[in-house]
Formats: sequence, C-alpha cells, structure tokens
Amino acid sequence: MNHDPSQSNDVSSEDRPWRILGIHHVAFASSDEGPGDALANVLGLRCEHAEEAEGFLEEMIPVGNASLQLLTATGPGTVATYLERRGPGLHHVALLVNDVDAITSDLCARGVDMVDRVPRPGGAGTRIAFAHPRAFGGMLIEFVEES
Amino acid sequence: MNHDPSQSNDVSSEDRPWRILGIHHVAFASSDEGPGDALANVLGLRCEHAEEAEGFLEEMIPVGNASLQLLTATGPGTVATYLERRGPGLHHVALLVNDVDAITSDLCARGVDMVDRVPRPGGAGTRIAFAHPRAFGGMLIEFVEES
Repeated sequence: MNHDPSQSNDVSSEDRPWRILGIHHVAFASSDEGPGDALANVLGLRCEHAEEAEGFLEEMIPVGNASLQLLTATGPGTVATYLERRGPGLHHVALLVNDVDAITSDLCARGVDMVDRVPRPGGAGTRIAFAHPRAFGGMLIEFVEES
Repeated sequence: MNHDPSQSNDVSSEDRPWRILGIHHVAFASSDEGPGDALANVLGLRCEHAEEAEGFLEEMIPVGNASLQLLTATGPGTVATYLERRGPGLHHVALLVNDVDAITSDLCARGVDMVDRVPRPGGAGTRIAFAHPRAFGGMLIEFVEES
C-alpha cells in the first residue's frame, strides 16, 4: 500500500560507509519491580548478562538473535530522570551497526542531533552512540557495534 | 554476574508446546508526526508494508530480520487512548512464536492475564495475541505467528 519498489531498504545502496544490520535490543526502564521475574517464570526468558552502570543496572535477556534489556534505576541519572517524566516503560531501541564510528560521524556531519557525538563504551564490550529523540520523531535510538 | 548456567534460555527445555523464536517487531505510537520520515531520510529504513486497522495505520519498516512498526492514530481506539495517557513513544514488543494458539492457551491455563484469550488476525497475514501489561511488569508483549 505504501510500498515503492524503487526504494530499496538496503542502506548500503545509498553509498554510505555504514550498514544497519538489525535490532540489537529493546530496553525497558523501571524502578524496582520490572518485567524480569515474569519474563523468566512465564516465558523462560532469562537474564544472561548484567552489569552496573552509573545510576542503573542493565540486564540482557536474549530472545533469538536480539535481546530485551531491562534498565533498573539505582540512583540519579538518565534512567531515574526518564522514570520521573514518563514512568516505567519501553525506553529505547538499539540498532546493530557494522561501524558505530562511521555512522556517528556521518550523522553528525549531516546535522542529525546526536546525544553522543563520539561513540562510548556500552555494556558487554560494545561501543554505542545515542541519537537525540528529537532526531527521530521522539524515538530514542541507540547505535551499537559489537566487539 | 547474574548468570546462572543451570538456567537455560531455551524455553523448549521446559517441555512446553511453543517456542519463542525472536523479536518480531517493536512498535512506536504517535499521532501524526512520527519517526517515519527521519528513519527513511537519515537511516534509509523504509516502510515496506502498511495497512489500516481500526483507529490506526500500521507501517512495517524492516531492520534486518525484525521490523520497526509505526502506529499512527487515525481515530478512536487503543492507539489514541495510549497517546492520551502517555504521549508518543514505544508502545509494545512483539515476540515471534512458532505456535500462537499453543502459547495463548498455555498462558491462559497458567493464569497469565491475556488481552487476547484467543489469537486474532494481525497485519500481513499474521496471527497475534497480546498479554496484558500487568502480566509482565508493565511491558506490553504481543505474540506473533507468521503465516
């Protein structure tokens, strides 16, 4: 219905030095009682990696080749601020890219509003950069490159 | 850190007649100005399927083997109600399952609070069932079986 066959979904066809490979994870933010127990007990989806970051705990729950990420506020910071403003809920989508440096510098050069103008370390040895939600109509997008 | 190797992430090991295969899509709800244009223009991620449902337009944007789904309210209904309550934002996560009838009846039998106690048709020929967000600590989860 809205499909124009002349438009390819392959971003590499636009001759850019980066590629989006898929959805890496979807994050859910909460204070203490989150979906973790129910995901494990009802669906058998269990945390396989957890680490502390500044102001929050990050837990990764594999689902096929992507993950659900639970962010639990442990102190002041971006997750606590989000919870104050919106309450518990889905927080961001992380897109797996082949080259986070290339996409970050390309987007900065094209005037896209980035939270991280230079990639920084993420969980589990990844390197990440967030775009500002106003760059994508309110959708908070993280770009992730795996090590 | 939080990983117990005795707990497998393979739900089939729990001897249930259904399996979760991966993340099928992540949905974002908005009124009219959503992320669609920016996803296409900035990232080259384009809608490949759109269809009208009752009270909203549903657009699917493939990203690797999953999709971003944009839900745009077109009248009264669940999307409009969500927008009134929370404003634009990430709405739900859809998990791809091998057998939506099996997981729905299993979850109902185990007392899990389901919005759909019987699967119903979803977009693009899928069959779907939503759990109630209170069943998963506030996370709205859809189960999807592809045709």
